[in-house]
Amino acid sequence: MATTTTTAATAAVCIGSSEVGWQQQQEKKKPEQQAAVGDQPWLPPGFRFHPTDEELVSYYLAKKVHNSSSFSGHAIAEVDLNKCEPWDLPEKAKMGEKEWYFFSLRDRKYPTGMRTNRATEAGYWKATGKDRDVTSSRRPSQLVGMKKTLVFYKGRAPKGEKTNWIMHEYRLEGAAAADSNTHHLQPPPCIVNNNKDEWVICRIFQKCPGGKKSFLLGMDGGGAVCTAGAPNMSGADDGAA
Amino acid sequence: MATTTTTAATAAVCIGSSEVGWQQQQEKKKPEQQAAVGDQPWLPPGFRFHPTDEELVSYYLAKKVHNSSSFSGHAIAEVDLNKCEPWDLPEKAKMGEKEWYFFSLRDRKYPTGMRTNRATEAGYWKATGKDRDVTSSRRPSQLVGMKKTLVFYKGRAPKGEKTNWIMHEYRLEGAAAADSNTHHLQPPPCIVNNNKDEWVICRIFQKCPGGKKSFLLGMDGGGAVCTAGAPNMSGADDGAA
Repeated sequence: MATTTTTAATAAVCIGSSEVGWQQQQEKKKPEQQAAVGDQPWLPPGFRFHPTDEELVSYYLAKKVHNSSSFSGHAIAEVDLNKCEPWDLPEKAKMGEKEWYFFSLRDRKYPTGMRTNRATEAGYWKATGKDRDVTSSRRPSQLVGMKKTLVFYKGRAPKGEKTNWIMHEYRLEGAAAADSNTHHLQPPPCIVNNNKDEWVICRIFQKCPGGKKSFLLGMDGGGAVCTAGAPNMSGADDGAA
Repeated sequence: MATTTTTAATAAVCIGSSEVGWQQQQEKKKPEQQAAVGDQPWLPPGFRFHPTDEELVSYYLAKKVHNSSSFSGHAIAEVDLNKCEPWDLPEKAKMGEKEWYFFSLRDRKYPTGMRTNRATEAGYWKATGKDRDVTSSRRPSQLVGMKKTLVFYKGRAPKGEKTNWIMHEYRLEGAAAADSNTHHLQPPPCIVNNNKDEWVICRIFQKCPGGKKSFLLGMDGGGAVCTAGAPNMSGADDGAA
């Protein structure tokens, strides 16, 4: 997927549409009157930032790491995750209703080590489960990144209190990291020797208190997302084969 | 939501972004090399048409019914569902990877009756379950439409063979239909007296053969959608409160 990292087209793409009017009208209403239309006036109603893991890694993160640390795009804001509590993150995001995306620089706890410091003033992010591969959809598929899941705990380890704030942290690996000059299997190339390579993308969301599995936002089988005001594109709940 | 139906802003909205380059590059690749980036060159990677029920009804359908039968927009194509088998529909859609949206005119089976003819050459769509209310998200919420779920059967009733093709059919009702001159509770105003009011929006998708519930595309609790190549925005599968 190295080719995906070198694109520098700068086309201005026009939606040229009356579809935007409704959204603008919605935005003039008081918050409680607004429909759940997202918060991007340049998007027609119903369009949302719902990226695949591969798109996050091979496009957005690769571009951030390799092309320009100033790259931002419309969807993903930069944030220092050590300085923000999870509940303050939604308002810092560029868009999103139920999940929010950020570029973040990993803060190494020990200058010579690989353990990262994910503490905030109110608590800390703790990794859970195994990191998972992010692979390209083209065949044969290639490893392009890794995805780590973390849970936010209030307080200080080991006595922190688990919350329902979840983070998916994506880092470059394999093919998508290949443009980097450093190649190591462990630790990953993106966090060695070069500050610009420490960028990760984080998806932040709140898991429903009950962990109810019926409100999935995605399609690869993981967790529940709280639902108030969110898109509801249910499949058939009755009768299909 | 009547106010949402009268908008006629015609702003040309510019994305003005280098984000489109990756997608254009992807599109030059052979199909098997493409990432699952959707099929809209004017959308940056990761942006998809994932509308809420309310957006479908209060914006797209209301606009189609009240403003202009020629309204189409970027996301929803017109189709005659009596002339298309479900497996032929994806290629007729304007966009979509795992679900596809269409405007369709309901074809009444009996000129004086309300039962609609949903037969195709190969089979027929059969309603299942109760119709569900579509309400506005603003408070107090108002009824804006109804959502019917149908399953496609091959062959002829009553001996048809159930398939995994599902349709959600949305029609105007209540507030969103209020601009119409006809007000009836049953049958709904949108299918009385006026051809232009017979428009519905249909979402077509395939349910996974096993009906496995772990691959939800939406957040209001219904059904499973097949997943190959689709966005995977899983929640945490391990450890959240």
